Amino acid sequence: MTSPDRSRRIVLLTEGHSEPAAGKTASCLLRYRGGEIGAILDSTQAGRTAHDLFGVGGSIPVVATLDEAGPADELLIGIAPPGGRIPPAWRPVILAAIGRGMRIVSGLHDFVADDPEFAAAARDRGVEIRDVRRNAERDVAKCPPLREECLRILTIGQDISVGKMVTSVELARALRGRGIDAKFIATGQTGIMIEGDGCPIDRVISDFVNGAVEKQVLANQHHELLVVEGQATITHPQYSGVSLGLLHGCDPHGMILVYEAGRPHHMGLPHIPLPRLESVIEAYERMAAFRGGGRVIGVAMNSRRLGADEADAERARVKAALGLPVADPIRHGSGDLVEAVLALAARRRGA
Amino acid sequence: MTSPDRSRRIVLLTEGHSEPAAGKTASCLLRYRGGEIGAILDSTQAGRTAHDLFGVGGSIPVVATLDEAGPADELLIGIAPPGGRIPPAWRPVILAAIGRGMRIVSGLHDFVADDPEFAAAARDRGVEIRDVRRNAERDVAKCPPLREECLRILTIGQDISVGKMVTSVELARALRGRGIDAKFIATGQTGIMIEGDGCPIDRVISDFVNGAVEKQVLANQHHELLVVEGQATITHPQYSGVSLGLLHGCDPHGMILVYEAGRPHHMGLPHIPLPRLESVIEAYERMAAFRGGGRVIGVAMNSRRLGADEADAERARVKAALGLPVADPIRHGSGDLVEAVLALAARRRGA
Repeated sequence: MTSPDRSRRIVLLTEGHSEPAAGKTASCLLRYRGGEIGAILDSTQAGRTAHDLFGVGGSIPVVATLDEAGPADELLIGIAPPGGRIPPAWRPVILAAIGRGMRIVSGLHDFVADDPEFAAAARDRGVEIRDVRRNAERDVAKCPPLREECLRILTIGQDISVGKMVTSVELARALRGRGIDAKFIATGQTGIMIEGDGCPIDRVISDFVNGAVEKQVLANQHHELLVVEGQATITHPQYSGVSLGLLHGCDPHGMILVYEAGRPHHMGLPHIPLPRLESVIEAYERMAAFRGGGRVIGVAMNSRRLGADEADAERARVKAALGLPVADPIRHGSGDLVEAVLALAARRRGA
Repeated sequence: MTSPDRSRRIVLLTEGHSEPAAGKTASCLLRYRGGEIGAILDSTQAGRTAHDLFGVGGSIPVVATLDEAGPADELLIGIAPPGGRIPPAWRPVILAAIGRGMRIVSGLHDFVADDPEFAAAARDRGVEIRDVRRNAERDVAKCPPLREECLRILTIGQDISVGKMVTSVELARALRGRGIDAKFIATGQTGIMIEGDGCPIDRVISDFVNGAVEKQVLANQHHELLVVEGQATITHPQYSGVSLGLLHGCDPHGMILVYEAGRPHHMGLPHIPLPRLESVIEAYERMAAFRGGGRVIGVAMNSRRLGADEADAERARVKAALGLPVADPIRHGSGDLVEAVLALAARRRGA
């Protein structure tokens, strides 16, 4: 693991998009790197706090200008919209940050460093632009035997933006808390910003997705356990290709299904109903069978829409319906999911 | 359809790779644009004919140098190796062709026009370099309702390089022969070279694969019928992501399964057995069910390894085992597959 430089003082740019859905990157950075974040920049929400906007990040202030943000050496773009383009309203802010000598970090598909105006400004000022989705993956998967002593767990989902990354980070941390040498394998821009390494697989040329994921496994299988961050779902009409390449590229021994309780339909696609959790599990296990045959061993419920009693009822209902451990890693902790992973590891050792 | 310029006189470059597997592009160009091809350039095979090397293309000569090829205005790179890189031995030939003012057409992942030496030479000589895999796809699928009067057929496969493109071209032609306004939707570099349009989906950024395929459907659904060229297979350990994005992006009403009789294992992966045809069908139908629920309606058998009697026996065996029409489009013609498509169209009209 390449540890991110924890000494940076970061300004999170979410201008005009400070809601948890669009600001998924911001929410997760606040959750896992909150100590490095000095301010959130959104002139439409100035005067509020991180907690007000994202339900996480406590009293980190929301400011209207870089001047109000105080000393900082990094501007981090905190949204990841579909298509990933730079909103025009952000251009002056990015240029001003470069003018102050701040590093620019972005997870957008539109690379900041490929923009001639930003590139020229950064060159003049000697500023680094880090486009986290940039990659040069060009290797087809080789499908070698993998180290069987390294247990591979993949988070999968019923939809996009349900909490696969948070579940993966929490699970890896909880496993490390139990003395397991567990490594979080980031596969998306936000995960990479948190972990400091990984591969932005949705930005990889499609021919090389399986290979790019395999490469992450090969580079990290000296660990005892890998928790691979899932992307979207193989049942998703827009992104299924990314998800299946990820599944076959990492060939997991076990999968944790993540869903958001109470979500009515695919995010952004109100005319397309969500598949039932049973269907998602069946589809993943069937497709996994073309490699090593990993099974779903637990369910991570994202219960942010529910009150405490509702969440407990939903948890019990889904546990009974699927016959699998269920927990919201934020609300209930990851204990039940850790036990499911340890039980899988024990079964494999016994086998 | 943008018709390719049929007046060009093409030299097919396959230097050192003149076998049907590596020279898949060459074989298909010889089959479908043979009338425009003046010579094959392979110094290791000079003096032989296209038929000798590829079993197609008749007496088109194999030559050792551009001088021997006679007058020509296009050099077409006729191999598509995994990874798609330019073999170093080809550099002097490509430069010589540019020097003669010949257009360069390539389907490799490594773009010829991005090579500084080739680019400079082409600029100096005013020569066009056409990298067929180049694309700027950046749109996520929108999943609108599609025109239900346009029947969408997708070819799918048990493996790579089994004949999905040939099956698609032959089926579309045979349907047009029956008076149907059928359009071949090319999704790979060779198909695009033959049809003159399409999208190289294995070169699209993975987030946009489903969307790029959907775009091809939207642009062509004024036709009565689309035959969409399949890529790899959703059960393939190296390329499954490409294949699933293609399936969900075009949401076919019917699928034709293509396989090569007698193939022992995944091409290039001797340690990975091929899935049974039944498993491939089940996997595709299950994943198609997350969109419109298309079914497999016929099987195209590639029987190039078999003699005539063996091919007939295999055809009867698979037909009985799967309960589906089976034919080798080259050996037996596409009649049975055309009937299967017309029957599906009739069932849908009746429904």
